[in-house]
Amino acid sequence: MKNAVGRDIPEQVLKEGRRIYEGKYTHDGTYVQRLAPRTRICEKPRASKLVASLKEACLRCGARDGMTISFHSDFRNGDYVANLAVRTLVEELGIKDITIAATSLGSAQDAIADYIEQGIVTGVQTSGVRGRIGEVISEGKLKTPAIIRSHGGRPRAISAGEVHIDIAFLAASSSDDYGNASGIGGKNNCGSIGFAVPDARYADHVVIVTDTLVEFPNMPSTISSIDVDCVVVVDEVGNPAKIATAEARMTENPRELMMAERVADIIAATPYFKDGFSFQTGVGGPSLAVNRFLEAHMRRENIQMGFALGGISSAMCQLQDKGLVRKILDTQDFDKGAIAHLAAHPDVHIEISTDEYANPSNKGAYVNKLDYVVLSALEIDIDFNVNVITGSDGVLRGAPGGHPDTAAGSKCCIIVTPLMRGRMATVCEKVVTVTTPGDCVDVLVTDYGVAVNPLRPDIIECLDTAGIPHVSIEVLKEKAYSMVGRPDALEWEDQVIAIVEARDGSVLDVVKKIKPVRL
Amino acid sequence: MKNAVGRDIPEQVLKEGRRIYEGKYTHDGTYVQRLAPRTRICEKPRASKLVASLKEACLRCGARDGMTISFHSDFRNGDYVANLAVRTLVEELGIKDITIAATSLGSAQDAIADYIEQGIVTGVQTSGVRGRIGEVISEGKLKTPAIIRSHGGRPRAISAGEVHIDIAFLAASSSDDYGNASGIGGKNNCGSIGFAVPDARYADHVVIVTDTLVEFPNMPSTISSIDVDCVVVVDEVGNPAKIATAEARMTENPRELMMAERVADIIAATPYFKDGFSFQTGVGGPSLAVNRFLEAHMRRENIQMGFALGGISSAMCQLQDKGLVRKILDTQDFDKGAIAHLAAHPDVHIEISTDEYANPSNKGAYVNKLDYVVLSALEIDIDFNVNVITGSDGVLRGAPGGHPDTAAGSKCCIIVTPLMRGRMATVCEKVVTVTTPGDCVDVLVTDYGVAVNPLRPDIIECLDTAGIPHVSIEVLKEKAYSMVGRPDALEWEDQVIAIVEARDGSVLDVVKKIKPVRL
Repeated sequence: MKNAVGRDIPEQVLKEGRRIYEGKYTHDGTYVQRLAPRTRICEKPRASKLVASLKEACLRCGARDGMTISFHSDFRNGDYVANLAVRTLVEELGIKDITIAATSLGSAQDAIADYIEQGIVTGVQTSGVRGRIGEVISEGKLKTPAIIRSHGGRPRAISAGEVHIDIAFLAASSSDDYGNASGIGGKNNCGSIGFAVPDARYADHVVIVTDTLVEFPNMPSTISSIDVDCVVVVDEVGNPAKIATAEARMTENPRELMMAERVADIIAATPYFKDGFSFQTGVGGPSLAVNRFLEAHMRRENIQMGFALGGISSAMCQLQDKGLVRKILDTQDFDKGAIAHLAAHPDVHIEISTDEYANPSNKGAYVNKLDYVVLSALEIDIDFNVNVITGSDGVLRGAPGGHPDTAAGSKCCIIVTPLMRGRMATVCEKVVTVTTPGDCVDVLVTDYGVAVNPLRPDIIECLDTAGIPHVSIEVLKEKAYSMVGRPDALEWEDQVIAIVEARDGSVLDVVKKIKPVRL
Repeated sequence: MKNAVGRDIPEQVLKEGRRIYEGKYTHDGTYVQRLAPRTRICEKPRASKLVASLKEACLRCGARDGMTISFHSDFRNGDYVANLAVRTLVEELGIKDITIAATSLGSAQDAIADYIEQGIVTGVQTSGVRGRIGEVISEGKLKTPAIIRSHGGRPRAISAGEVHIDIAFLAASSSDDYGNASGIGGKNNCGSIGFAVPDARYADHVVIVTDTLVEFPNMPSTISSIDVDCVVVVDEVGNPAKIATAEARMTENPRELMMAERVADIIAATPYFKDGFSFQTGVGGPSLAVNRFLEAHMRRENIQMGFALGGISSAMCQLQDKGLVRKILDTQDFDKGAIAHLAAHPDVHIEISTDEYANPSNKGAYVNKLDYVVLSALEIDIDFNVNVITGSDGVLRGAPGGHPDTAAGSKCCIIVTPLMRGRMATVCEKVVTVTTPGDCVDVLVTDYGVAVNPLRPDIIECLDTAGIPHVSIEVLKEKAYSMVGRPDALEWEDQVIAIVEARDGSVLDVVKKIKPVRL
């Protein structure tokens, strides 16, 4: 059955009660009945919720076969807690048939790939699937299809009861003995733990894992003790030095800088660029680099940014320190500078949850107030559909993150990407997997030219007025194919290894098992 | 059927699915399934949630006959929003059969008493019932029995789905056009709006009523825009000058000061009085005055308070400014000084919700970490049961507030009250209404002597060691009766006009209609 982005969704997937994607904003104004957790009553005064070990915490929280556990990914590649918790459940308690519902999974969780191969971890629900986990899932080794959700789709699914978390294991940089927990104030700070908030509020059981126990009350804090069952102290919860990945570093590549400058020029040419405008950049090199080119435009116009949203890097903090950004709303920190800035400026650099950030089923997420978002892509096709989950070889190695949410919420969504990566065209006929629908994408900036979505004649007019050249996206695609050749179609087996949920929970696309290459 | 505090609960009340009170902590460790709101999806970008009038907000939120609406009472006697909302519903929209679920109701809401008399407001669920509302309910004019809950019992009932709020009308001192709302940052600040948080999170519809619209994002804020349907701007939301009531002013009465000093001496004589101890005072004159006498003890011992909890007055803020209180956890502010202090010191003077403060069904409210609470009483009987809801004439004119919650959670609960008020004995044989069970009360301090609950031999030993004289509570009762005479028993009709819920939701007591005096 074909959905609104032209993807054929296999009947077997729809048999499980899933709906096909019918287009953006189709649920606006309708009601959803939220589903709240089963909560263990703590009526009696109790001095502390400290338990001696993760094993004991698991036992107290009723660990059992077939359960769903969760983690947040605000420690990014430096996270230790996910591995620790799964190892405890499997090796110390012999728990089987585990579903992992994480905000993201990457190379820090490579060890979990073994448990997938052994058939112990049988379900994965996540935004990111990088590293070995992506590989083993792509090889068809996970018993059930992985479910890929955006950062906003995840709290939607959790609050709707589509994901029921039995135990959330939440890394905290500091916590008191009652579970007031934070991403700052410890020996290993990750900054915002906005990813953990829906888990804390909706999981049946919540275990805080920290390496820095502080006096009660550890307040202000992100996670409130009223949502926490147990607190476990470990040696190290994570390594902040590994938070800043290659994707999150500021580029010095002249080609990327050129694209970033062009993005800033386009922003300055549109009517939303006025005092109080709002802005978000994704984590890719050219996206992040836009910050520095925006500064000159803002100074020339003598305007401030009203708020910056999403994952935050030092570049944005520096813009705020220079007086150019009134508020930063922060779901995760991309480097140590941003972490320290969050701790130092709680009045203007403010932690927010992914529910506040991007959930399409609450009463208005912050993405709905966004003027501009600048995002990267693994592929973009001539319908402006974007793929940020599968490589050109069909293997899972990406993360929708907030991409579909900010694209749908913002007034102007700009994709910035090189026309080719190595010998592969980035602008193509049809993306391998749709992760962001094309009607949410407005402008494409490449190193070989700009294209505007025909759905946005207003933006085309702005660019013409500003003298910014642009071509049709077909021209860019042909340019790419002329240089690297038109790729052969990938060959798939029938097995669906991943379901890509639209942010509203419908099926946007599926990923099938790629046919092994025959040598 | 008799409950655990010896009260005979009429069968008619229990027929409605209610349980009798079986004693404290009986639900500890059991599970409760929470019930979440029905939420209207706001998937589509939308510039603003501003609506032109309260009437329009009511219409957008589906106002209908038979619904339940709610308000918070952080503006105390200076609140304008409750009257405004009810008047709009009744006069402009003709809505009938309204249940009001407020955090408290007092003389500021006297106008609502008319709607009770007219049979338009048919249900009242509240902590406080002072002023005309208390009178008309006592006269049997409310169609259904009022339900009296503690500050912790209310969020318990809301999260358990026992109170289902259709529309919450929440006064905010400042808000942006998306509904990020706060008790500070406006022209009329009330300080903490911790009372409003459960309503914001659990009501089907939330209307923010403010008189100060600020730029988005009004962050940090107490209420998040993701929970808000509409924002309405009115001329004035309340009068902060009326927040400080007579009950919340610092006493200069020498008899009250003497009792306060004795309370401080008792605190200093018990083992919990050490660095990091935690403390709360109620709003009564002698309770509040304890702050000043504690200071000398703390300086002598060279210790700090770890945290102060609950409703906060300037006296506590001054203690913090002097370096004697590490953290203040604030559910409501009792005067302008405390409001300004909350705004100025967000790092150490921290707003908390009533859920965090006192809900007995979450995973550990802050009252569970409380060492000392000092509370007042309208009456206390020889079983140490306390009444803070009905006057000696049987009329509703009080508020359990956090009394039952802090008494149950704290290690040492001290009641301070004069032995008599006018010609009425405060210490008596049997209180008119039980609002706090006697086994949660540890010490009674009066102007004629101290009594310790026999359940606490450890505290008796402390007082003996410190040379603080004490007698049995029977001695105090007899002393009172010898001076003002033993009162005649009140005469009641059969009609139950109010149900006093224990904090766990069971029936602690009922209040019947008092027989009219025949002249």
